[in-house]
Amino acid sequence: MPVNLAAPDPAQLHPVPGLRIGTAMAGVRKAGRRDLVVFAFDEGAAAAGVFTSNRYCAAPVQLCREHLAAGAGIRAFVINTGNANAGTGADGLARARRSCDALAALMHVAPAQVLPFSTGVIMETLPVERIEAALPAALASLRDDGWADAAAGIMTTDTLPKAASRRVTIDGRSVTVTGISKGAGMIRPNMATMLGFIATDAVIAPALLQPLIKEAADLSFNRITIDGDTSTNDSLLLVATRRAGHAEIGALDTAAGRTLRDAVVAVAQQLAQAIVRDGEGATKFITVRVDGGRDEAECRLAAYAIAHSPLVKTAFFASDPNLGRILAAVGYAGIGDLDQNLIDLHLDEVHVVRDGGRHPDYREEDGQRVMKRSEITVRVDLHRGAASALVWTCDLSHDYVSINADYRS
Amino acid sequence: MPVNLAAPDPAQLHPVPGLRIGTAMAGVRKAGRRDLVVFAFDEGAAAAGVFTSNRYCAAPVQLCREHLAAGAGIRAFVINTGNANAGTGADGLARARRSCDALAALMHVAPAQVLPFSTGVIMETLPVERIEAALPAALASLRDDGWADAAAGIMTTDTLPKAASRRVTIDGRSVTVTGISKGAGMIRPNMATMLGFIATDAVIAPALLQPLIKEAADLSFNRITIDGDTSTNDSLLLVATRRAGHAEIGALDTAAGRTLRDAVVAVAQQLAQAIVRDGEGATKFITVRVDGGRDEAECRLAAYAIAHSPLVKTAFFASDPNLGRILAAVGYAGIGDLDQNLIDLHLDEVHVVRDGGRHPDYREEDGQRVMKRSEITVRVDLHRGAASALVWTCDLSHDYVSINADYRS
Repeated sequence: MPVNLAAPDPAQLHPVPGLRIGTAMAGVRKAGRRDLVVFAFDEGAAAAGVFTSNRYCAAPVQLCREHLAAGAGIRAFVINTGNANAGTGADGLARARRSCDALAALMHVAPAQVLPFSTGVIMETLPVERIEAALPAALASLRDDGWADAAAGIMTTDTLPKAASRRVTIDGRSVTVTGISKGAGMIRPNMATMLGFIATDAVIAPALLQPLIKEAADLSFNRITIDGDTSTNDSLLLVATRRAGHAEIGALDTAAGRTLRDAVVAVAQQLAQAIVRDGEGATKFITVRVDGGRDEAECRLAAYAIAHSPLVKTAFFASDPNLGRILAAVGYAGIGDLDQNLIDLHLDEVHVVRDGGRHPDYREEDGQRVMKRSEITVRVDLHRGAASALVWTCDLSHDYVSINADYRS
Repeated sequence: MPVNLAAPDPAQLHPVPGLRIGTAMAGVRKAGRRDLVVFAFDEGAAAAGVFTSNRYCAAPVQLCREHLAAGAGIRAFVINTGNANAGTGADGLARARRSCDALAALMHVAPAQVLPFSTGVIMETLPVERIEAALPAALASLRDDGWADAAAGIMTTDTLPKAASRRVTIDGRSVTVTGISKGAGMIRPNMATMLGFIATDAVIAPALLQPLIKEAADLSFNRITIDGDTSTNDSLLLVATRRAGHAEIGALDTAAGRTLRDAVVAVAQQLAQAIVRDGEGATKFITVRVDGGRDEAECRLAAYAIAHSPLVKTAFFASDPNLGRILAAVGYAGIGDLDQNLIDLHLDEVHVVRDGGRHPDYREEDGQRVMKRSEITVRVDLHRGAASALVWTCDLSHDYVSINADYRS
């Protein structure tokens, strides 16, 4: 059961002028589902992306990097679920290339103008011939308002499609930012989530897209973790169709740049949080905030140690205020000269630990009350500096084990 | 159900001359169990220990370090289960000190000659008065052959007591090495396990005990992980009562030194592996070996990434050869310049991945056959150097979640 997350209302997903979306049933892994998604961009769109830091990156990720670097402009995405085309060696790269070639031929664009994305099982051969066969149907279904179908089409173990949309006004013109994402396991993005796509019609200098998507990723997808497993396929793309008709945004630190930046960050955060809310087996949405570090890096070490600890996560699942597990995680996070006697711990409004030990006023029933909530903030203060870090995660439940023990069957 | 592990046969646990063990019911957490263990050493024993690297180390660990550094010789251990006395601040330290003072007074030794150990729930106040009250009963029960009782007395979520014993001959004299340990969650020792105690009557120069226990820990307890959570209380102690009557061992690289070293390492490895075999919810014992690294550090990164991945661990639980998850873990392990195209993966005798991709001869049924075994070796070759690392771990099952969600209730 996702945590405070509902399926998106298609009527609230504003189309982005200059972009159409189509889907088809390719039967990549299972028959009878729309597992192939195509994005088609009008000429003039600009794109930027951030990708997994996993050294075992998937063939489509390698090809995305190659095609973006070619600088020929991006005209299409070809996205399949059911097979990640990762751990597939040279053959996998050739198959990813074939999917781009096929779509490029049908659209009369160059193969380097197509970006491929795959998600699903690792180390299995991509049945690219099924994708090729289904591409004409996907192109025939292209439409402006295809976002909800696309969000459903890229799901793997997600229980709900994930989408977000914002409209802002820039120079008197309405500008749209709409995006979709998918999780829901192997989630500890170090660059982006498994798959995230955000599009806008804002007129923005193409060179600004990369810093914008990097910042948005750092403030959203790079702050979530479900199981600590950084995927082989993480990809987050930002495309600007540049059709909104306002004066070009030439810098992010202008009024127009900030308006767009805030809208992109808001969409990215909503999409990233949706992945955690729909994390495999998740029953609680946990915000981990670590303050008082010497630098952000050590705050992140502590925050991720808490967010990844199976003991902490099972305690949240059980609504059991076994909060010493949080202290233990801070202690082994790798901050070499940490002084345990300075540490404070709050669980929402409850002050649990002061000066490294149990707060004299802390009562078990207060911890119990907070642990029963579906959204909880853990706040640790290291009291050794002014830096902070924030991570969103979920609990570890029986359903996580069931889902991942049965994923391929 | 522990994996190929049985309760130790008390008759096979050889007493160590110069050392007696007693137990008592203190009711630290629950009434009616022998939760207090006392080791009493004759004068002349020498001790050395390795302790958790967790910066949030427990009060008894802090006191162990202080008392070993005092160099007054060690005459006793006082060990309780049911409460870890960690995350308890200055009050916890005072309570640990009181337990040493009480035992020292009863034994007519100095408090600094007593080492305290605690295991159990974190961040709860140690009821030291109950320990004080039960110490006379524990002392009254001191006996030479108390190892099996001690192994049972230190258990928390362990389902079986853990003990190992060896007899070797040095200079024509019989020398005994006997030890006990306990797990079974919050196990990713970075110095030692939760609790491990090894004693020998070998006549060894006291200065050699520290390098010997350090080496034994590196080859045993520092190679196991269950959930990646490094405990606040990890302690591994080696005590030599020096009663065996042979000529003193003055160096470890002599015939006598090697004989003793091998026996201590064998006992330590058996105790460490027993913790994994009895890991919370474990159904499989997994050996992860990474070869071909530039140095041991990067091999350990890859081995621990595999051993900690919830996705890998749930696949083992399900006997599902979803082996791409192993590749993904290697990829995100943090080896910056890893070339995925060089990687080989074997599962026992099955060659799964060659040159980074699925081996052409690999068949799903071969992977399936191996995954059904209760003991499996994962072997990754990075093909970039000559270094290796080895880690022992277990799978992640429903029972792990149940045990940790219910631990305190």
